Amino acid sequence: MKKGRIFSGMRPTGMLHLGNLVGALANWVRLQDDYECFFAVVDWHALTTGYQDTSMLREHTRQVLIDFLSAGIDPERSVVFRQSDVKEHAELHLLLSMITPLGWLERCPTYKEQLQQLSEREITTYGFLGYPVLMASDILVYKADTVPVGEDQLPHLELAREIARRFNFMYQPVFPEPQAKLSPVAVLPGTDGRKMSKSYGNAIQMADSPEAIRESVKSMITDPARIHKSDLGHPDVCTVFAYHSAFTPELAEERRAECERAQIGCVACKRQLADTLVLALAPVHERRKRLESTPGVVESILAEGADRARPVAAATLEEVRAAMRI
Amino acid sequence: MKKGRIFSGMRPTGMLHLGNLVGALANWVRLQDDYECFFAVVDWHALTTGYQDTSMLREHTRQVLIDFLSAGIDPERSVVFRQSDVKEHAELHLLLSMITPLGWLERCPTYKEQLQQLSEREITTYGFLGYPVLMASDILVYKADTVPVGEDQLPHLELAREIARRFNFMYQPVFPEPQAKLSPVAVLPGTDGRKMSKSYGNAIQMADSPEAIRESVKSMITDPARIHKSDLGHPDVCTVFAYHSAFTPELAEERRAECERAQIGCVACKRQLADTLVLALAPVHERRKRLESTPGVVESILAEGADRARPVAAATLEEVRAAMRI
Repeated sequence: MKKGRIFSGMRPTGMLHLGNLVGALANWVRLQDDYECFFAVVDWHALTTGYQDTSMLREHTRQVLIDFLSAGIDPERSVVFRQSDVKEHAELHLLLSMITPLGWLERCPTYKEQLQQLSEREITTYGFLGYPVLMASDILVYKADTVPVGEDQLPHLELAREIARRFNFMYQPVFPEPQAKLSPVAVLPGTDGRKMSKSYGNAIQMADSPEAIRESVKSMITDPARIHKSDLGHPDVCTVFAYHSAFTPELAEERRAECERAQIGCVACKRQLADTLVLALAPVHERRKRLESTPGVVESILAEGADRARPVAAATLEEVRAAMRI
Repeated sequence: MKKGRIFSGMRPTGMLHLGNLVGALANWVRLQDDYECFFAVVDWHALTTGYQDTSMLREHTRQVLIDFLSAGIDPERSVVFRQSDVKEHAELHLLLSMITPLGWLERCPTYKEQLQQLSEREITTYGFLGYPVLMASDILVYKADTVPVGEDQLPHLELAREIARRFNFMYQPVFPEPQAKLSPVAVLPGTDGRKMSKSYGNAIQMADSPEAIRESVKSMITDPARIHKSDLGHPDVCTVFAYHSAFTPELAEERRAECERAQIGCVACKRQLADTLVLALAPVHERRKRLESTPGVVESILAEGADRARPVAAATLEEVRAAMRI
């Protein structure tokens, strides 16, 4: 007996990196044991900030799906699909738009934040403002009760709950109020210690070759106060230690002690980490290779996922229309 | 060879009145000869202002469809359907939302106007703001090149053109820029001389019985300066004359002369008008009676209309997705 139903999605804005793997995908993989899971590549969402250049959208969608599967998402156990293949998301988005007060969206903290961060793009569009309504539709159309999210997504999930509550109150109780399941792992920094992001050029991609991984690890920023190997280290400010903690948490205290006591130098410590990452990613790379070398397999997984998602979404829409008396 | 393709729609906010008949439906009926026509009961639009009480939505949709058909819209020649039966409208609405600048919607003159007029309802919703995007989708999903509208709808049609232009420029030229076809008839006033509106209680409904019509005509406001039958009349300020002009334009000059020369009193003039209206509406009532007494006919017309609309809309969406590279 599963504990409940999960929806989560990722935008196909490029190939996924280790931050996505540790912060989300690895968690999703574990959740498959306990929950009925719907995992989507949310390509419509990618348009909210990327409508001006869609040339890579299909390729990114394909790559993100391969990243999902490489990480260990099992399309037999979970429903893995592309958002735009299930048109019910769009219908529910339209219907929920009717009951969503503008102020809820305008006051959403991430909205103004992103307007500033992405000020070089023209994103003051109607669709960008409605991003949380689309996200609410994604979740509610499967009546998901649990949503694994990062801290930064909490305001959106709160909005999804408010929209669900308003719908249930105004018409009929159709939707559960989806609860957040915060990722248990701290956010993985980029190689330069800042937030990991493709646009900063500090990301290690899941699909990176062992050589590329070793290069990236070599370039990592360590404790700036530790000039000589004999200086005592401060692992809490060290990027390398953050990776050790994420990928071999069982050895983290040992690594910490070695660093604080200057029993290991940064070069050797990085070599250890590179070995760890290459080992950890070996099965991921193995799966990616298999998927890439089997023509049509990605397409058929997407098609089957959509075929499984659609009837669930359609049944919810039936209820929604009945409740709204459309 | 038809001249082009028309889309037009009406919201199911209640039964239609003579203003709708004269100002729109009678025009639609004529357009059927020259254009390929798509006429929709736009029930999703009714939610933009009426989401709080949807109890009558289905009944109003049915009644408006009967009004369409009673007026002479021919479901053999034209595609007559309900908006919510063709999900492609929702998908296109979502996609166009991504490229529609917020400012275009916020600056739409009808937006602020309606916010004030309907201040007693909570309509500052995301869906209400996006009303013109949904209207653009309705038109563009059929690649309609011609839209019969009243003056008040011109800003919305201008927006639909701008959205089409932006899409064509940003991706691929998919949409024609729909042109307005203004109704040739002046707006018919309500019985009290104000704008005809259900909410003012001054409307004559298309389905009103001959008795009700005669009562309504009796209550019409005439030239306030004409107290006695011997006073010379001013037909241009007389509600009754506006109706004479609309329903028997060929006799309008004669009526004008009789009034200005005080050759006829208001009571007799109203009796003439009531006779005219009852005569004009006889075939409308006849058709309504036939539709109401044949079980299932409305439902089957709607189903068939949706079956004809859907492939056209689906073909457009294919092109849209290809152009956007989704």
